[in-house]
Parts: sequence; C-alpha cells; structure tokens
Amino acid sequence: MNGVTDRTRPTRKPERQVADTAALHAVLDEALVAHVAVVRDGYPVVLPMGCARDGESLLLHGSSGGGLLREAAAGATITAAVTLLDGLVFARSVADASMNYRSAMVVGVATQLRGEEEERALHLLSDHLVPGRWDEVRPSTTRELAATLVLRLPLEEASVKVRAAGPTSSPDDGEDRSVWAGVVPLALRAGEPEAADDVPDGVPVPASVRAAASRT
Amino acid sequence: MNGVTDRTRPTRKPERQVADTAALHAVLDEALVAHVAVVRDGYPVVLPMGCARDGESLLLHGSSGGGLLREAAAGATITAAVTLLDGLVFARSVADASMNYRSAMVVGVATQLRGEEEERALHLLSDHLVPGRWDEVRPSTTRELAATLVLRLPLEEASVKVRAAGPTSSPDDGEDRSVWAGVVPLALRAGEPEAADDVPDGVPVPASVRAAASRT
Repeated sequence: MNGVTDRTRPTRKPERQVADTAALHAVLDEALVAHVAVVRDGYPVVLPMGCARDGESLLLHGSSGGGLLREAAAGATITAAVTLLDGLVFARSVADASMNYRSAMVVGVATQLRGEEEERALHLLSDHLVPGRWDEVRPSTTRELAATLVLRLPLEEASVKVRAAGPTSSPDDGEDRSVWAGVVPLALRAGEPEAADDVPDGVPVPASVRAAASRT
Repeated sequence: MNGVTDRTRPTRKPERQVADTAALHAVLDEALVAHVAVVRDGYPVVLPMGCARDGESLLLHGSSGGGLLREAAAGATITAAVTLLDGLVFARSVADASMNYRSAMVVGVATQLRGEEEERALHLLSDHLVPGRWDEVRPSTTRELAATLVLRLPLEEASVKVRAAGPTSSPDDGEDRSVWAGVVPLALRAGEPEAADDVPDGVPVPASVRAAASRT
C-alpha cells in the first residue's frame, strides 16, 4: 500500500478512496497528463505536464524554461493530480447526478533527473505516451536534452479515488422509476493521423502512430 | 481581455498564451471538470470538480462535506485549472514531440452561493454538463440543496494557453524527411447509454441522455 497520510486522505466520501498500489498504478498508467501544482507567493499554480509512471515514481516532463518545473526541481513540495473521466451518471434528481472517474493525487518533493537517468526517463515517457515511437526517430541531441527537464516524484504519499457505479437512489426519489437513470460512458479517443505539410508522398504512417490512432 | 497578472502570466512559451476573453470562455465552456487547488499547511491540495462558466465567473460544484470546498468557501485563494487534450504531436525527434491542448488557469477567491443563487447555479451547471436534463428530473429537495456546495470564482485573473499546430522542425533534423511527422487528434467521446438496473422496461432514453451520448 502506498502511503495515505493526513495530506492525501480524502475528507469526504472515503468509500471512494482505493488505497492500494495496483489501483494507483492503474490510474497513473492510463494518464497522459498530470495537473502539477506548486505554491507560489501563497497561492497554488497549476499546470498540465506529460507524465508516466516508473515503478514507485511518477515522471513529469516539461521544458527547462518552465518556472513551475524550476521551483519543483529546487525542492518545493508539489502535488500531481490525475483524473480520468469515465462517465456521466444520470440520477433521478440533479442533486444525485454524478460522474464516474478515477483520480489520483501524489504529494511530495521531486528530484530533477540528469544525464543517463534523464535519458532513460525520457525513453520511458515516450514509450508511455506513444509506445514504439522512440525507436522510429533520431536520437535527441545534447542541445535538446539540455532544454528538457524531467522530474521524478515518489509515490510515497498518494491517494486514489474511484467512482465506478450506476446512479444512487435517494429516499427523495420515492417509488417513481419513470425517469431513465444510468450512465453514459466517456473516454479519450483518437482520430485519424494528420500528416505534417512537409511529409513527402510515400512516407508511410509508422506503427507507433497507427497504434496511437487506434487508442480507444 | 481578462486580467493576465504576474500570477497568471506563463513563464515559458508565452506565444502559447491567448489572452483574450473569447479564448478563455471557449476553453472553459468545453470543460466538464476543473482541477481545483488550495494551499493547505504549505502544500497544494488538488481535486477535480464539476465546472461551468457563468458569464465572467466559473462555477465549481462539490459536496459540502469536502474539505477543499470548505476552505475555498472560507476565503482561501484557489486556482482552477482546465486542460483539454486535443492531440499527440509526432515530430522527428522525441525532444520535439508535443501535445496539442487548450488549457486555462483561473486564480482568485471564490464565494459560496446560497439560496436562489445556488439553485440558479446548479441549474447552469446541470445545463452545461447535460443540456436539458434539469427539466427531465424532479426538483432537488431542501435536504439535497443543503448537502451541495457551489462556488463562484471570478475570471478576473486568468490565463489561457493553446497549442494547436503540427510538429515543429528542429535544425537537428537536417534535411531528412523520411520519418512521418504529424498529429493524432484526441477528444473525449461518449459511448452508448447504460440503463441502471432499476429502470423498468419501456422507459425511453430521454433526449438529454441521447444528446450526451452523441458527444463528439
């Protein structure tokens, strides 16, 4: 079990919290983007970043020019939040309407990866976001690696909340079941690949892109 | 123009910032969920909440039992971040790989809505998340309204960042164009409605649900 602490323990609907490692990993493994927050001058700054799980860490990726990433790399406590929206839940009142989702929050101090560690992390991030792409493109140059900042955030303090159910009924519904209730599933889906203008005729869509386009 | 201040001015890639009201509204109007952050004991807490824009405010919705919402209602500065993932961008190196997205960050102090204001806000939230549903279900009871907390966050301090383009080319690519580059679009899409177990035979899927299920 990953550490549910006072910082990551939900204050409401604790039944929606799933405090086991497998559930946390499953949420993080499906996320492409995490919302990463840091405290600046007393208020939270929140920005999206590419993410990938690496064992018991979450890798976060951005440009080395990013202020938030620099603050995180300098040792500020950060929070990474991931939410996968799975459905709209239709109850018999608006008050009971809900969403199905899987969300995770990880709190901690991240470390900046450098050298071979950074390159390995970029490889993992690339494989997570687009499996197979790494091997289709040229290696990154030293200049490009210098412009990249990768953080490793340990999963030591983390929580997961999952709602995966049909609508709840309220005593206020009475016996009336004449109104439809249920779930409309939601998922992030991919469309057809769109080639850049400078792709010459005859260059095939590679396997990694075809796989990404069939994401369901 | 909404206020881009030192708190909402991006520190990197300012060309991706679109500082006009229409762009901000467009991002918020497509979002179902915002990641809302508040500072607690010096670190950021980030949770997803249902959201809807109401003119120059963002409405945020959760249970009155939620600690974060209570802190926000008590006057803490909060940050609401919304990200719409629009595509995976394939360049000729992993370093230039990117994502297309539209994101917004709103910073401010929210106020809790009560009475008729709260009910109007719930109606707006419902109409945003599922247009037409409000009129298909029974009215919420006083008990249900008491268990609901709706916040209004002004859009006075807000920023928008948009990446909506093909891959960038790097000098490090040289003249080689033999590797496919382009974009795989991504979008949140809905599936077929799934009726709850207690829906009697013959109850039709209502218009609001059919519309939600055709979300593309």
